[in-house]
Amino acid sequence: MSDTEADELASACADAMYERDVAAQAAGIILDSVRCGHASLKMTVRADMLNGHDVCHGGYLFLLADTAFAYACNSYNRVALAQNCDIDFVRPGKEADDLIATAEERRKGGRTGLYDVTVRKSDGEVLAHFRGRSVQLNEAVIQD
Amino acid sequence: MSDTEADELASACADAMYERDVAAQAAGIILDSVRCGHASLKMTVRADMLNGHDVCHGGYLFLLADTAFAYACNSYNRVALAQNCDIDFVRPGKEADDLIATAEERRKGGRTGLYDVTVRKSDGEVLAHFRGRSVQLNEAVIQD
Amino acid sequence: MSDTEADELASACADAMYERDVAAQAAGIILDSVRCGHASLKMTVRADMLNGHDVCHGGYLFLLADTAFAYACNSYNRVALAQNCDIDFVRPGKEADDLIATAEERRKGGRTGLYDVTVRKSDGEVLAHFRGRSVQLNEAVIQD
Amino acid sequence: MSDTEADELASACADAMYERDVAAQAAGIILDSVRCGHASLKMTVRADMLNGHDVCHGGYLFLLADTAFAYACNSYNRVALAQNCDIDFVRPGKEADDLIATAEERRKGGRTGLYDVTVRKSDGEVLAHFRGRSVQLNEAVIQD
Repeated sequence: MSDTEADELASACADAMYERDVAAQAAGIILDSVRCGHASLKMTVRADMLNGHDVCHGGYLFLLADTAFAYACNSYNRVALAQNCDIDFVRPGKEADDLIATAEERRKGGRTGLYDVTVRKSDGEVLAHFRGRSVQLNEAVIQD
Repeated sequence: MSDTEADELASACADAMYERDVAAQAAGIILDSVRCGHASLKMTVRADMLNGHDVCHGGYLFLLADTAFAYACNSYNRVALAQNCDIDFVRPGKEADDLIATAEERRKGGRTGLYDVTVRKSDGEVLAHFRGRSVQLNEAVIQD
Repeated sequence: MSDTEADELASACADAMYERDVAAQAAGIILDSVRCGHASLKMTVRADMLNGHDVCHGGYLFLLADTAFAYACNSYNRVALAQNCDIDFVRPGKEADDLIATAEERRKGGRTGLYDVTVRKSDGEVLAHFRGRSVQLNEAVIQD
Repeated sequence: MSDTEADELASACADAMYERDVAAQAAGIILDSVRCGHASLKMTVRADMLNGHDVCHGGYLFLLADTAFAYACNSYNRVALAQNCDIDFVRPGKEADDLIATAEERRKGGRTGLYDVTVRKSDGEVLAHFRGRSVQLNEAVIQD
Protein backbone atom coordinates (compact mmCIF):
# COMPACT_ATOMS: atom_id res chain seq x y z
CA MET A 1 0.00 0.00 0.00
CA SER A 2 1.44 3.39 -0.97
CA ASP A 3 1.51 6.32 1.46
CA THR A 4 -1.33 7.94 -0.43
CA GLU A 5 -3.46 4.79 -0.25
CA ALA A 6 -2.66 4.44 3.46
CA ASP A 7 -3.78 8.02 4.07
CA GLU A 8 -6.97 7.45 2.06
CA LEU A 9 -7.70 4.38 4.19
CA ALA A 10 -7.01 6.45 7.32
CA SER A 11 -9.50 9.03 6.14
CA ALA A 12 -12.09 6.35 5.34
CA CYS A 13 -11.62 4.81 8.83
CA ALA A 14 -12.24 8.24 10.37
CA ASP A 15 -15.42 8.75 8.35
CA ALA A 16 -16.74 5.31 9.35
CA MET A 17 -15.95 5.95 13.02
CA TYR A 18 -17.41 9.44 13.01
CA GLU A 19 -20.70 8.24 11.57
CA ARG A 20 -21.17 6.06 14.69
CA ASP A 21 -19.51 8.49 17.14
CA VAL A 22 -22.57 10.00 18.79
CA ALA A 23 -20.55 11.53 21.64
CA ALA A 24 -18.23 13.44 19.31
CA GLN A 25 -21.16 14.63 17.20
CA ALA A 26 -23.17 15.69 20.27
CA ALA A 27 -20.20 17.75 21.49
CA GLY A 28 -20.06 19.47 18.10
CA ILE A 29 -16.67 17.98 17.27
CA ILE A 30 -15.88 17.95 13.55
CA LEU A 31 -13.11 16.24 11.61
CA ASP A 32 -10.60 18.62 10.07
CA SER A 33 -8.13 16.11 8.62
CA VAL A 34 -7.00 12.55 9.32
CA ARG A 35 -4.06 10.66 7.86
CA CYS A 36 -1.93 7.75 9.12
CA GLY A 37 -1.07 8.42 12.76
CA HIS A 38 -2.37 12.00 12.66
CA ALA A 39 -5.71 13.71 13.24
CA SER A 40 -6.88 17.28 13.51
CA LEU A 41 -10.34 17.95 15.00
CA LYS A 42 -12.33 21.10 15.84
CA MET A 43 -14.83 22.02 18.55
CA THR A 44 -16.39 25.30 19.67
CA VAL A 45 -16.82 25.86 23.43
CA ARG A 46 -20.56 26.03 24.14
CA ALA A 47 -22.37 27.51 27.14
CA ASP A 48 -23.22 23.99 28.34
CA MET A 49 -19.48 23.18 28.53
CA LEU A 50 -18.69 25.84 31.17
CA ASN A 51 -17.92 24.82 34.74
CA GLY A 52 -18.43 26.57 38.08
CA HIS A 53 -15.45 28.87 37.39
CA ASP A 54 -17.19 30.01 34.16
CA VAL A 55 -14.49 28.51 31.92
CA CYS A 56 -14.56 25.44 29.69
CA HIS A 57 -14.75 22.32 31.87
CA GLY A 58 -11.45 20.46 31.69
CA GLY A 59 -13.49 17.39 30.81
CA TYR A 60 -14.41 18.94 27.45
CA LEU A 61 -10.81 19.88 26.64
CA PHE A 62 -9.98 16.26 27.43
CA LEU A 63 -12.93 14.99 25.36
CA LEU A 64 -11.68 16.90 22.31
CA ALA A 65 -8.04 15.79 22.80
CA ASP A 66 -9.05 12.18 23.49
CA THR A 67 -11.18 12.13 20.34
CA ALA A 68 -8.29 13.42 18.20
CA PHE A 69 -6.12 10.70 19.79
CA ALA A 70 -8.74 8.05 18.98
CA TYR A 71 -8.95 9.05 15.30
CA ALA A 72 -5.14 9.10 15.02
CA CYS A 73 -4.60 5.68 16.60
CA ASN A 74 -7.48 4.04 14.68
CA SER A 75 -6.12 5.31 11.35
CA TYR A 76 -4.48 2.01 10.38
CA ASN A 77 -7.81 0.18 10.03
CA ARG A 78 -7.16 -1.68 13.28
CA VAL A 79 -9.44 -0.95 16.21
CA ALA A 80 -7.33 0.70 18.91
CA LEU A 81 -8.40 1.56 22.45
CA ALA A 82 -7.08 4.15 24.87
CA GLN A 83 -5.29 2.56 27.84
CA ASN A 84 -3.99 5.61 29.65
CA CYS A 85 -3.96 9.34 29.00
CA ASP A 86 -2.62 12.40 30.76
CA ILE A 87 -3.41 16.05 30.23
CA ASP A 88 -1.76 19.29 31.33
CA PHE A 89 -4.09 22.27 31.49
CA VAL A 90 -2.24 25.42 30.41
CA ARG A 91 -4.88 28.14 29.98
CA PRO A 92 -8.66 28.14 30.39
CA GLY A 93 -10.99 28.07 27.40
CA LYS A 94 -13.85 30.56 27.18
CA GLU A 95 -17.34 30.33 25.73
CA ALA A 96 -17.34 30.56 21.92
CA ASP A 97 -13.61 29.78 21.63
CA ASP A 98 -12.94 27.82 18.44
CA LEU A 99 -10.61 25.00 19.44
CA ILE A 100 -8.45 22.71 17.35
CA ALA A 101 -6.81 19.54 18.62
CA THR A 102 -3.88 18.10 16.68
CA ALA A 103 -2.77 14.53 17.38
CA GLU A 104 0.73 13.41 16.36
CA GLU A 105 2.15 9.91 16.69
CA ARG A 106 5.27 9.81 18.84
CA ARG A 107 5.83 6.10 18.46
CA LYS A 108 4.15 2.95 17.20
CA GLY A 109 5.52 -0.47 17.99
CA GLY A 110 3.81 -3.82 18.01
CA ARG A 111 0.23 -3.22 19.09
CA THR A 112 0.87 -0.17 21.26
CA GLY A 113 1.17 3.49 20.37
CA LEU A 114 2.00 6.84 21.98
CA TYR A 115 0.34 10.02 20.75
CA ASP A 116 0.78 13.69 21.68
CA VAL A 117 -2.19 16.00 21.26
CA THR A 118 -2.11 19.79 21.52
CA VAL A 119 -5.34 21.75 22.02
CA ARG A 120 -5.12 25.29 20.69
CA LYS A 121 -7.42 28.23 20.13
CA SER A 122 -7.75 29.51 16.57
CA ASP A 123 -5.14 32.22 17.32
CA GLY A 124 -2.64 29.47 18.15
CA GLU A 125 -2.67 29.87 21.94
CA VAL A 126 -2.20 26.48 23.62
CA LEU A 127 -4.87 25.43 26.15
CA ALA A 128 -3.76 21.88 26.88
CA HIS A 129 -1.09 19.26 26.22
CA PHE A 130 -2.32 15.64 26.15
CA ARG A 131 -0.46 12.33 25.84
CA GLY A 132 -2.28 9.08 25.12
CA ARG A 133 -1.26 5.41 25.06
CA SER A 134 -3.24 3.01 22.84
CA VAL A 135 -3.45 -0.72 22.29
CA GLN A 136 -4.66 -2.31 19.05
CA LEU A 137 -7.19 -5.13 18.91
CA ASN A 138 -7.25 -7.81 16.26
CA GLU A 139 -10.27 -6.23 14.57
CA ALA A 140 -10.71 -3.98 11.55
CA VAL A 141 -12.34 -0.54 11.76
CA ILE A 142 -13.84 -0.99 8.28
CA GLN A 143 -15.00 -4.52 7.54
CA ASP A 144 -15.39 -5.36 3.84
CA MET B 1 -12.97 25.26 63.01
CA SER B 2 -14.03 21.74 64.09
CA ASP B 3 -14.00 18.81 61.68
CA THR B 4 -17.80 18.97 61.51
CA GLU B 5 -17.75 22.67 60.66
CA ALA B 6 -15.02 22.06 58.05
CA ASP B 7 -17.14 19.36 56.42
CA GLU B 8 -20.22 21.61 56.47
CA LEU B 9 -18.18 24.33 54.75
CA ALA B 10 -16.97 21.73 52.20
CA SER B 11 -20.58 20.79 51.49
CA ALA B 12 -21.58 24.46 51.16
CA CYS B 13 -18.67 25.06 48.72
CA ALA B 14 -19.86 22.14 46.63
CA ASP B 15 -23.43 23.44 46.53
CA ALA B 16 -22.24 26.91 45.50
CA MET B 17 -20.01 25.47 42.75
CA TYR B 18 -22.66 23.08 41.49
CA GLU B 19 -25.22 25.86 41.09
CA ARG B 20 -22.87 27.54 38.55
CA ASP B 21 -21.49 24.28 37.06
CA VAL B 22 -23.48 24.14 33.84
CA ALA B 23 -21.23 21.45 32.32
CA ALA B 24 -21.71 19.03 35.23
CA GLN B 25 -25.46 19.65 35.24
CA ALA B 26 -25.73 19.22 31.46
CA ALA B 27 -23.92 15.86 31.74
CA GLY B 28 -26.43 14.77 34.38
CA ILE B 29 -23.79 14.63 37.10
CA ILE B 30 -25.21 14.85 40.62
CA LEU B 31 -23.49 15.34 43.97
CA ASP B 32 -23.63 12.34 46.25
CA SER B 33 -21.51 13.59 49.14
CA VAL B 34 -18.69 16.09 49.67
CA ARG B 35 -16.52 16.62 52.73
CA CYS B 36 -13.00 17.99 53.24
CA GLY B 37 -10.76 16.49 50.58
CA HIS B 38 -13.38 13.97 49.45
CA ALA B 39 -16.20 13.92 46.92
CA SER B 40 -18.54 11.29 45.57
CA LEU B 41 -20.50 12.07 42.37
CA LYS B 42 -22.90 10.12 40.16
CA MET B 43 -23.65 10.07 36.43
CA THR B 44 -25.66 7.77 34.19
CA VAL B 45 -24.21 6.92 30.76
CA ARG B 46 -26.56 8.39 28.15
CA ALA B 47 -26.93 7.49 24.48
CA ASP B 48 -25.27 10.78 23.51
CA MET B 49 -22.14 9.76 25.46
CA LEU B 50 -21.38 6.69 23.31
CA ASN B 51 -18.45 6.70 20.90
CA GLY B 52 -17.84 4.92 17.60
CA HIS B 53 -17.16 1.62 19.41
CA ASP B 54 -20.63 1.89 21.04
CA VAL B 55 -19.24 2.29 24.56
CA CYS B 56 -19.08 5.32 26.81
CA HIS B 57 -16.62 7.85 25.34
CA GLY B 58 -13.51 7.98 27.54
CA GLY B 59 -14.01 11.73 27.62
CA TYR B 60 -17.18 11.28 29.69
CA LEU B 61 -15.50 8.92 32.17
CA PHE B 62 -12.81 11.60 32.48
CA LEU B 63 -15.43 14.36 32.80
CA LEU B 64 -17.04 12.55 35.72
CA ALA B 65 -13.72 11.79 37.44
CA ASP B 66 -12.39 15.30 36.84
CA THR B 67 -15.55 16.78 38.33
CA ALA B 68 -15.25 14.65 41.46
CA PHE B 69 -11.62 15.79 41.70
CA ALA B 70 -12.68 19.44 41.36
CA TYR B 71 -15.26 19.19 44.16
CA ALA B 72 -12.74 17.44 46.43
CA CYS B 73 -9.93 19.96 45.89
CA ASN B 74 -12.24 23.00 46.18
CA SER B 75 -13.66 21.75 49.49
CA TYR B 76 -11.49 24.02 51.65
CA ASN B 77 -13.20 27.21 50.43
CA ARG B 78 -10.15 28.06 48.34
CA VAL B 79 -10.53 28.04 44.58
CA ALA B 80 -8.34 25.22 43.23
CA LEU B 81 -7.59 24.46 39.60
CA ALA B 82 -6.55 21.23 37.90
CA GLN B 83 -2.98 21.37 36.62
CA ASN B 84 -2.49 17.85 35.38
CA CYS B 85 -4.54 14.64 35.39
CA ASP B 86 -4.06 11.10 34.20
CA ILE B 87 -6.57 8.35 33.69
CA ASP B 88 -6.30 4.59 33.20
CA PHE B 89 -9.24 3.02 31.39
CA VAL B 90 -9.96 -0.42 32.84
CA ARG B 91 -13.31 -1.53 31.39
CA PRO B 92 -15.77 0.14 29.01
CA GLY B 93 -18.99 1.72 30.25
CA LYS B 94 -22.28 0.88 28.55
CA GLU B 95 -25.41 2.91 27.92
CA ALA B 96 -27.57 3.26 31.07
CA ASP B 97 -24.72 2.28 33.42
CA ASP B 98 -25.04 4.14 36.70
CA LEU B 99 -21.56 5.38 37.53
CA ILE B 100 -20.12 6.70 40.74
CA ALA B 101 -16.80 8.53 41.04
CA THR B 102 -15.10 8.72 44.44
CA ALA B 103 -12.29 11.24 44.96
CA GLU B 104 -9.86 10.77 47.84
CA GLU B 105 -7.06 13.13 48.83
CA ARG B 106 -3.65 11.48 48.73
CA ARG B 107 -1.75 14.53 49.88
CA LYS B 108 -2.16 18.24 50.49
CA GLY B 109 0.82 20.48 51.05
CA GLY B 110 1.15 24.20 50.60
CA ARG B 111 -1.08 25.15 47.70
CA THR B 112 -0.87 21.89 45.80
CA GLY B 113 -2.82 18.65 46.17
CA LEU B 114 -2.91 15.11 44.79
CA TYR B 115 -6.22 13.26 44.47
CA ASP B 116 -7.10 9.72 43.40
CA VAL B 117 -10.49 9.12 41.82
CA THR B 118 -12.03 5.73 41.10
CA VAL B 119 -14.95 5.43 38.66
CA ARG B 120 -17.15 2.42 39.39
CA LYS B 121 -20.43 0.98 38.20
CA SER B 122 -23.15 0.55 40.81
CA ASP B 123 -22.13 -3.13 41.18
CA GLY B 124 -18.66 -2.00 42.24
CA GLU B 125 -16.85 -2.90 39.02
CA VAL B 126 -14.06 -0.39 38.35
CA LEU B 127 -14.11 1.38 34.96
CA ALA B 128 -11.28 3.88 35.46
CA HIS B 129 -8.54 5.04 37.82
CA PHE B 130 -7.79 8.78 37.73
CA ARG B 131 -5.13 10.86 39.48
CA GLY B 132 -5.29 14.67 39.55
CA ARG B 133 -2.91 17.43 40.69
CA SER B 134 -4.41 20.76 41.81
CA VAL B 135 -3.13 24.22 42.70
CA GLN B 136 -5.00 26.62 44.98
CA LEU B 137 -5.57 30.29 44.13
CA ASN B 138 -5.79 33.04 46.70
CA GLU B 139 -9.56 33.29 46.25
CA ALA B 140 -12.53 31.96 48.21
CA VAL B 141 -15.15 29.65 46.66
CA ILE B 142 -17.87 31.25 48.81
CA GLN B 143 -17.48 35.00 49.31
CA ASP B 144 -19.37 36.44 52.29
CA MET C 1 -2.61 -23.24 43.98
CA SER C 2 -3.57 -21.95 47.43
CA ASP C 3 -2.98 -18.34 48.47
CA THR C 4 -0.09 -19.49 50.63
CA GLU C 5 1.52 -21.37 47.76
CA ALA C 6 1.00 -18.38 45.47
CA ASP C 7 2.73 -16.10 47.98
CA GLU C 8 5.59 -18.57 48.37
CA LEU C 9 6.00 -18.59 44.59
CA ALA C 10 5.93 -14.78 44.62
CA SER C 11 8.68 -14.75 47.19
CA ALA C 12 10.73 -17.28 45.19
CA CYS C 13 10.33 -15.15 42.03
CA ALA C 14 11.60 -12.14 43.94
CA ASP C 15 14.64 -14.01 45.22
CA ALA C 16 15.46 -15.27 41.72
CA MET C 17 15.12 -11.76 40.25
CA TYR C 18 17.10 -10.11 43.01
CA GLU C 19 20.04 -12.47 42.55
CA ARG C 20 20.41 -11.15 38.97
CA ASP C 21 19.37 -7.55 39.74
CA VAL C 22 22.76 -5.85 39.80
CA ALA C 23 21.26 -2.36 39.62
CA ALA C 24 19.07 -2.86 42.70
CA GLN C 25 21.96 -4.41 44.62
CA ALA C 26 24.37 -1.64 43.60
CA ALA C 27 21.89 0.95 44.87
CA GLY C 28 21.74 -0.88 48.19
CA ILE C 29 18.08 -1.84 47.72
CA ILE C 30 17.01 -4.80 49.84
CA LEU C 31 13.83 -6.88 49.75
CA ASP C 32 11.61 -6.47 52.79
CA SER C 33 8.65 -8.64 51.74
CA VAL C 34 7.03 -9.79 48.51
CA ARG C 35 3.73 -11.57 48.01
CA CYS C 36 1.27 -11.77 45.09
CA GLY C 37 0.85 -8.28 43.69
CA HIS C 38 2.68 -6.62 46.56
CA ALA C 39 6.27 -5.72 47.37
CA SER C 40 8.02 -3.76 50.06
CA LEU C 41 11.65 -2.70 49.51
CA LYS C 42 14.17 -0.62 51.45
CA MET C 43 17.01 1.72 50.49
CA THR C 44 19.17 4.19 52.41
CA VAL C 45 19.99 7.51 50.75
CA ARG C 46 23.76 7.60 50.19
CA ALA C 47 26.03 10.59 49.57
CA ASP C 48 26.42 9.54 45.92
CA MET C 49 22.61 9.84 45.44
CA LEU C 50 22.47 13.59 46.22
CA ASN C 51 21.87 16.10 43.45
CA GLY C 52 22.92 19.73 42.98
CA HIS C 53 20.29 20.89 45.52
CA ASP C 54 21.90 18.55 48.10
CA VAL C 55 18.83 16.32 48.38
CA CYS C 56 18.22 12.80 47.09
CA HIS C 57 18.12 12.88 43.28
CA GLY C 58 14.54 12.23 42.11
CA GLY C 59 15.97 9.51 39.91
CA TYR C 60 16.88 7.46 42.99
CA LEU C 61 13.41 7.86 44.53
CA PHE C 62 12.08 6.66 41.17
CA LEU C 63 14.61 3.80 41.04
CA LEU C 64 13.43 2.53 44.43
CA ALA C 65 9.72 2.89 43.55
CA ASP C 66 10.18 1.34 40.11
CA THR C 67 12.01 -1.61 41.64
CA ALA C 68 9.20 -2.22 44.15
CA PHE C 69 6.76 -2.04 41.21
CA ALA C 70 8.86 -4.58 39.25
CA TYR C 71 8.91 -7.10 42.11
CA ALA C 72 5.14 -6.71 42.63
CA CYS C 73 4.20 -7.17 38.97
CA ASN C 74 6.62 -10.11 38.45
CA SER C 75 5.22 -11.94 41.48
CA TYR C 76 2.98 -14.28 39.44
CA ASN C 77 5.96 -16.08 37.85
CA ARG C 78 5.30 -14.33 34.56
CA VAL C 79 7.89 -11.85 33.32
CA ALA C 80 6.29 -8.40 33.34
CA LEU C 81 7.78 -5.19 31.97
CA ALA C 82 7.09 -1.57 32.86
CA GLN C 83 5.35 0.28 30.05
CA ASN C 84 4.69 3.64 31.66
CA CYS C 85 5.20 5.15 35.10
CA ASP C 86 4.52 8.48 36.74
CA ILE C 87 5.82 9.90 39.96
CA ASP C 88 4.81 12.83 42.17
CA PHE C 89 7.58 14.22 44.35
CA VAL C 90 6.16 15.32 47.70
CA ARG C 91 9.13 16.04 49.95
CA PRO C 92 12.90 15.79 49.42
CA GLY C 93 14.94 12.91 50.83
CA LYS C 94 18.12 13.63 52.75
CA GLU C 95 21.42 11.76 53.10
CA ALA C 96 21.12 8.73 55.43
CA ASP C 97 17.31 8.66 55.26
CA ASP C 98 16.06 5.08 55.48
CA LEU C 99 13.40 4.74 52.79
CA ILE C 100 10.75 2.12 52.27
CA ALA C 101 8.73 1.69 49.08
CA THR C 102 5.47 -0.23 49.23
CA ALA C 103 3.86 -1.43 45.98
CA GLU C 104 0.17 -2.30 45.93
CA GLU C 105 -1.76 -3.72 42.98
CA ARG C 106 -4.67 -1.52 41.95
CA ARG C 107 -5.83 -3.77 39.14
CA LYS C 108 -4.78 -6.78 37.13
CA GLY C 109 -6.60 -7.77 33.99
CA GLY C 110 -5.44 -9.84 31.07
CA ARG C 111 -1.74 -9.19 30.66
CA THR C 112 -1.71 -5.64 32.00
CA GLY C 113 -1.52 -4.34 35.55
CA LEU C 114 -1.67 -1.06 37.46
CA TYR C 115 0.38 -0.60 40.64
CA ASP C 116 0.61 2.22 43.19
CA VAL C 117 3.85 2.67 45.07
CA THR C 118 4.40 4.96 48.04
CA VAL C 119 7.92 5.93 49.11
CA ARG C 120 8.15 6.80 52.79
CA LYS C 121 10.83 7.58 55.35
CA SER C 122 11.05 5.27 58.36
CA ASP C 123 8.97 7.77 60.37
CA GLY C 124 6.14 7.36 57.86
CA GLU C 125 6.56 10.70 56.06
CA VAL C 126 5.72 10.32 52.38
CA LEU C 127 8.39 11.41 49.88
CA ALA C 128 6.79 10.27 46.62
CA HIS C 129 3.71 8.70 45.05
CA PHE C 130 4.34 6.50 42.02
CA ARG C 131 1.96 4.72 39.64
CA GLY C 132 3.17 2.08 37.18
CA ARG C 133 1.59 0.18 34.29
CA SER C 134 2.98 -3.26 33.39
CA VAL C 135 2.55 -5.78 30.61
CA GLN C 136 3.21 -9.50 31.02
CA LEU C 137 5.24 -11.53 28.54
CA ASN C 138 4.66 -15.21 27.82
CA GLU C 139 7.73 -16.22 29.80
CA ALA C 140 8.28 -17.56 33.33
CA VAL C 141 10.44 -15.77 35.90
CA ILE C 142 11.56 -19.12 37.35
CA GLN C 143 12.11 -21.84 34.78
CA ASP C 144 12.07 -25.38 36.13
CA MET D 1 19.47 40.39 28.36
CA SER D 2 20.06 39.20 24.76
CA ASP D 3 19.35 35.62 23.70
CA THR D 4 23.07 34.96 23.62
CA GLU D 5 23.55 36.30 27.14
CA ALA D 6 20.57 34.24 28.35
CA ASP D 7 22.08 31.10 26.84
CA GLU D 8 25.45 31.89 28.41
CA LEU D 9 23.74 32.27 31.79
CA ALA D 10 21.93 28.95 31.18
CA SER D 11 25.25 27.28 30.51
CA ALA D 12 26.81 28.85 33.64
CA CYS D 13 23.84 27.64 35.75
CA ALA D 14 24.37 24.13 34.40
CA ASP D 15 28.08 24.18 35.23
CA ALA D 16 27.37 25.41 38.78
CA MET D 17 24.71 22.71 39.31
CA TYR D 18 26.83 19.95 37.83
CA GLU D 19 29.75 20.75 40.13
CA ARG D 20 27.49 19.94 43.12
CA ASP D 21 25.51 17.14 41.40
CA VAL D 22 27.16 14.09 42.93
CA ALA D 23 24.38 11.74 41.76
CA ALA D 24 24.73 12.74 38.10
CA GLN D 25 28.51 12.49 38.28
CA ALA D 26 28.39 9.10 40.02
CA ALA D 27 26.11 7.79 37.25
CA GLY D 28 28.63 8.98 34.66
CA ILE D 29 26.22 11.58 33.24
CA ILE D 30 27.97 14.35 31.32
CA LEU D 31 26.63 17.66 30.01
CA ASP D 32 26.51 17.87 26.23
CA SER D 33 24.85 21.28 25.82
CA VAL D 34 22.50 23.51 27.81
CA ARG D 35 20.71 26.66 26.71
CA CYS D 36 17.51 28.40 27.87
CA GLY D 37 14.84 25.73 28.31
CA HIS D 38 16.93 23.01 26.64
CA ALA D 39 19.47 20.47 27.78
CA SER D 40 21.25 17.54 26.20
CA LEU D 41 23.05 15.03 28.45
CA LYS D 42 24.92 11.77 27.87
CA MET D 43 25.31 8.56 29.87
CA THR D 44 26.74 5.14 29.06
CA VAL D 45 24.91 2.08 30.40
CA ARG D 46 27.22 0.35 32.88
CA ALA D 47 27.14 -3.23 34.19
CA ASP D 48 25.94 -1.96 37.57
CA MET D 49 22.85 -0.42 35.89
CA LEU D 50 21.46 -3.74 34.63
CA ASN D 51 18.37 -5.25 36.24
CA GLY D 52 17.18 -8.84 36.67
CA HIS D 53 16.16 -9.03 32.99
CA ASP D 54 19.77 -8.10 32.03
CA VAL D 55 18.74 -4.77 30.49
CA CYS D 56 19.26 -1.23 31.74
CA HIS D 57 17.09 -0.67 34.84
CA GLY D 58 14.26 1.70 34.00
CA GLY D 59 15.34 3.73 36.99
CA TYR D 60 18.57 4.69 35.20
CA LEU D 61 16.76 5.70 32.01
CA PHE D 62 14.56 7.84 34.26
CA LEU D 63 17.59 9.20 36.14
CA LEU D 64 19.16 10.37 32.88
CA ALA D 65 15.91 11.88 31.57
CA ASP D 66 15.10 13.52 34.89
CA THR D 67 18.58 15.05 35.04
CA ALA D 68 18.20 16.51 31.53
CA PHE D 69 14.83 17.91 32.63
CA ALA D 70 16.43 19.45 35.76
CA TYR D 71 19.16 21.20 33.77
CA ALA D 72 16.60 22.53 31.26
CA CYS D 73 14.18 23.90 33.86
CA ASN D 74 16.97 25.43 36.01
CA SER D 75 18.44 27.24 32.99
CA TYR D 76 16.85 30.62 33.83
CA ASN D 77 18.94 31.06 37.01
CA ARG D 78 15.90 30.31 39.14
CA VAL D 79 15.93 27.12 41.20
CA ALA D 80 13.22 24.83 39.83
CA LEU D 81 12.06 21.53 41.31
CA ALA D 82 10.38 18.55 39.67
CA GLN D 83 6.78 18.13 40.81
CA ASN D 84 5.64 15.26 38.64
CA CYS D 85 7.15 13.21 35.83
CA ASP D 86 6.01 10.38 33.62
CA ILE D 87 8.00 8.06 31.42
CA ASP D 88 7.12 5.64 28.64
CA PHE D 89 9.60 2.84 28.10
CA VAL D 90 9.90 2.04 24.41
CA ARG D 91 12.88 -0.29 24.03
CA PRO D 92 15.37 -1.72 26.51
CA GLY D 93 18.89 -0.34 26.84
CA LYS D 94 21.85 -2.72 26.84
CA GLU D 95 25.21 -2.64 28.58
CA ALA D 96 27.64 -0.19 26.93
CA ASP D 97 24.89 1.65 25.05
CA ASP D 98 25.79 5.33 24.71
CA LEU D 99 22.62 7.22 25.58
CA ILE D 100 21.66 10.83 24.97
CA ALA D 101 18.71 12.59 26.60
CA THR D 102 17.38 15.75 25.01
CA ALA D 103 15.05 18.00 27.01
CA GLU D 104 12.82 20.50 25.21
CA GLU D 105 10.53 23.04 26.84
CA ARG D 106 6.91 22.60 25.82
CA ARG D 107 5.62 25.53 27.82
CA LYS D 108 6.67 27.98 30.52
CA GLY D 109 4.15 30.14 32.29
CA GLY D 110 4.35 31.83 35.64
CA ARG D 111 6.45 29.61 37.86
CA THR D 112 5.56 26.30 36.25
CA GLY D 113 7.00 24.55 33.22
CA LEU D 114 6.42 21.47 31.08
CA TYR D 115 9.35 19.67 29.46
CA ASP D 116 9.58 16.71 27.06
CA VAL D 117 12.68 14.56 27.17
CA THR D 118 13.60 11.87 24.66
CA VAL D 119 16.21 9.24 25.52
CA ARG D 120 17.96 7.85 22.46
CA LYS D 121 20.86 5.57 21.67
CA SER D 122 23.70 7.06 19.62
CA ASP D 123 22.15 5.52 16.47
CA GLY D 124 18.99 7.56 17.09
CA GLU D 125 16.80 4.69 18.31
CA VAL D 126 14.40 5.95 20.99
CA LEU D 127 14.44 4.12 24.35
CA ALA D 128 12.09 6.33 26.36
CA HIS D 129 9.78 9.34 26.24
CA PHE D 130 9.62 11.43 29.42
CA ARG D 131 7.47 14.42 30.38
CA GLY D 132 8.24 16.53 33.46
CA ARG D 133 6.46 19.35 35.28
CA SER D 134 8.53 21.85 37.28
CA VAL D 135 7.90 24.67 39.71
CA GLN D 136 10.30 27.57 40.26
CA LEU D 137 11.35 28.77 43.72
CA ASN D 138 12.24 32.37 44.52
CA GLU D 139 15.94 31.52 44.66
CA ALA D 140 18.83 31.94 42.23
CA VAL D 141 20.92 29.01 40.98
CA ILE D 142 24.03 31.22 40.85
CA GLN D 143 24.29 33.73 43.68
CA ASP D 144 26.64 36.68 43.06
